[in-house]
Order: sequence, then structure tokens, then C-alpha cells
Amino acid sequence: MADIPKTHPRYHSLTLRHLITDGLKAGLATEAALLAHGRGEAFYYLLGEKTHDFAHEAIQAASALIVTARHPVFSVNGNTASLAAAALLDLVKAYPRLKVEVNLFYHSPGRSRLIREHLEAVGIPGVLESCAADNVELATIESPRRRMNPEGIAQADVVVVALEDGDRCQALVEAGKQVIAIDLNPLSRTAQLAQVSIVDELTQVIPLLTAQISADLQTDPTSLAERIARYDNRDVLARAIGAIRTGA
Amino acid sequence: MADIPKTHPRYHSLTLRHLITDGLKAGLATEAALLAHGRGEAFYYLLGEKTHDFAHEAIQAASALIVTARHPVFSVNGNTASLAAAALLDLVKAYPRLKVEVNLFYHSPGRSRLIREHLEAVGIPGVLESCAADNVELATIESPRRRMNPEGIAQADVVVVALEDGDRCQALVEAGKQVIAIDLNPLSRTAQLAQVSIVDELTQVIPLLTAQISADLQTDPTSLAERIARYDNRDVLARAIGAIRTGA
Repeated sequence: MADIPKTHPRYHSLTLRHLITDGLKAGLATEAALLAHGRGEAFYYLLGEKTHDFAHEAIQAASALIVTARHPVFSVNGNTASLAAAALLDLVKAYPRLKVEVNLFYHSPGRSRLIREHLEAVGIPGVLESCAADNVELATIESPRRRMNPEGIAQADVVVVALEDGDRCQALVEAGKQVIAIDLNPLSRTAQLAQVSIVDELTQVIPLLTAQISADLQTDPTSLAERIARYDNRDVLARAIGAIRTGA
Repeated sequence: MADIPKTHPRYHSLTLRHLITDGLKAGLATEAALLAHGRGEAFYYLLGEKTHDFAHEAIQAASALIVTARHPVFSVNGNTASLAAAALLDLVKAYPRLKVEVNLFYHSPGRSRLIREHLEAVGIPGVLESCAADNVELATIESPRRRMNPEGIAQADVVVVALEDGDRCQALVEAGKQVIAIDLNPLSRTAQLAQVSIVDELTQVIPLLTAQISADLQTDPTSLAERIARYDNRDVLARAIGAIRTGA
């Protein structure tokens, strides 16, 4: 990665760009990942490049869902692996019950393996890969992304998706799963379809989620259930759209 | 390029994505071009993916500037060459006095030549390349983008830039040139610094500009001068920002 002085006003944004282009060069991400990252940059820019109260609220709901889930899984694609492998390690260290599964929209066995090895190289244990071999597939989508691992997403009640496509999110919701989406575009189908939509930049979100989960491991389950019941994703999305529209 | 059915609701957007990823694979564009394209997609989406009245007004002013210029030049980078070579050919056919010059932010002699050859292969005659050999450089920027061709941008009174970076735009303006920018982000430094900012998608703009220039070749020079004098880029940008903010 090229050296960017930490004092550069665009240090964070440029660092993310380098991570994603390095991910492309390493074969973790595709050209589509760069396009998607650029779209995310534009929405982040319009959001003022900060974590808003609606994102904090969604992170709190996400944490409560994950901590009370029977079988929570974090679905990882090439962008997420390129940008946030180290942050993911801290997350699964804080909450080892959260499984990590590699799932790709543009599936190839080679790239899936490469991403698993990249995650394992940073220290994440027991990384799963989605597969089609066991006839465990999401029925409603035609893409290779319907693949899921029988030990992972197939069994999951709560799935975290980041930088995910709308069809995939819809299929997970229709399969009866609670979906937590991390997505900078509150108007995207993914953000609109998920039960909890965290509208903020991925590498900012994961450490906040990790801290919230660590706190919630000490929180009484009744208040976690109440927090989930109180949570209103429509309101959160409306406030996120408002932030983009008004620039506030 | 992959086959996309023309009936696909995202046909135009997907076609542009394929053109830009093909441009990357052919060596015309860089990874940065894909990120920039993604940012453009997000702004275009927020603009409702249509040509607004403020864009039509800017195109009319741009046409008047180009037709009355002493030495107009269209500055072409890797994105523009990937997306709009055929449209550029129609434009220079309609107005052969408009010179085309290859100018790259991430300059390399090989890529510059490749882009020139790509433009010549579609039929654009006499394509220039920016160069540093003649000590004709824009004084105020440190990037290789300060290069310009002595027969082209160095002599130009009016320069069209598309998908251009802010430093470059600023240097051209400070060198006393009238800059027409085609940029989907009305908040970008490029759009803010140019004298005429066309906030619309490049492949939509060039044919509209070509048609306007063809009409203006028959327009009386006094009314072209009046159109330029009447044009208010601040108002155009304010309306473009308003369209993004309100979604109207």
C-alpha cells in the first residue's frame, strides 16, 4: 500500500481506496467492488463522513440481535475482506459465537478460497465458505450467491451482510433470517429490505459493533429483547435519507 | 463486453460499467477510474438519472463558448476515452475546429499513447497528447497533469474537461482559460471552479452538446455572446445541488 501521510485531510478515505485496490490486485475483490466502493464514497461524502445517531441506534439493535441469536453469521465478500479483515478479527475475538462465512456474488471457488485464507492469515479461526455441494441453497435467487454453508448461513437466524447486493439480502429475508446490513446507501434495496440497516462506513461500524457487543454481554437479556422490540428500522432509514438530502 | 439485454431496466448503467471495466482491462483507465465512476453513479442516481434543465442550460452556454472560441480543446482522460470515444468522434465531426488532447492525472507515456491510438482507431483525427518536453506546463500544479501540448491546451482559450480532478481544473482556470466541466458531482472542486459546469452523465452530454453546436453554427454571434454573458454558473450549481438534496 502506498504511503499516505496521516496528516492528509483525506487520509481515511485514501487508505480505504488503497485497501480496495490492493484487494483487487490480490484477487480478493473484483472490478465491481471498486465501482461499489466509489458509490459508497459518494454517499459517505453526502453524509458528512461521520457516524450519525441513526447509525449508533442501528448498531445497538444489531448488537442485541447478535448477542441473543441462536446462530449468528457474518457473511463476508471481497470488499469486506479487503477493507475490514483486522476489524473482523477483533469482532470475533470479542464474540467467538459469531461465525464468519465467505459468500461471493461473483462466485469462484478460487476467489472464495483466497478470501478464506486471507481471513485466516489475520487470525480469524474456522472461516466457512458458502458452497453448493450440499443442496443447501436459497431458493429464491438464481445467482451463485444462493450458495450457503450448512454449518453457517444455512442454519443462521441472524446474518450480518456488508456492502451486499439487494437480491441476496431479499433472499435471506425471505428465508426467514434476520438480516443486519451495513450499507452507506439508505435508498439501496439492501438497506430497504434488511431488518436492521446500519448506514455508515464499514471500517467505522465494526469497532463500534464490537464495543457494543462487549457491553451487551453484560446486559440483562430482557432489556436486549426490549431494545430489539423498540427498534424502528423505517425511522432509522428515514433519518439517514434525511441526512443525505439536507446535508445535516 | 458482456451481453446485456436492451430491455434490462439498468441497461444504460450496466453498459457504462462494462465500458469502464473494459477500459481498465485494456489499460486505458486505472483503478482510480472505477472508483470515480462509482462515485458518479451515486450522484447520477440521486439526480434521478436524467438530464435536468440546469444541465441543458450549461450545455447551451458550453456550446456558445466553444463556437466562439479562438482555440477550443477537449481534454480526454482514460475514463472519457473508455466511455465516450464514439460520441467524441461525432462531436469533432460536427465541429472539426475542436481539438482533442489526451491528458492524464496518472500520466504514463504508454497509457497516453494507448488512449490516443484508441481515439484514432474510432476515427478521431489529429489527436494530441500532453507532454512535458517543451517546457509548456501549468505552473500551479505539481502533478504530471500540468503537462500540456503546445498545439493544444497550451494555446487554448476554452478547455472542456470531463470527469476531471479539482487541482487540474483550478490550474487551468488560473492559467486564464475558460473551463467547461462535465461532472456529476456539483459539490466537487472541479464543478465549483469551472466557469461552466454541466452536471450530467458524460455519454448523455456529448450528443446533446454536438446537437447544440450544430445549431449554434447557424446562430448569430451576437446572440451567442449574449447567451454567454447571461449564463450564471452559481445558479446552475445551486439548482443541481438542490436536485440532489431534494430528489426533485
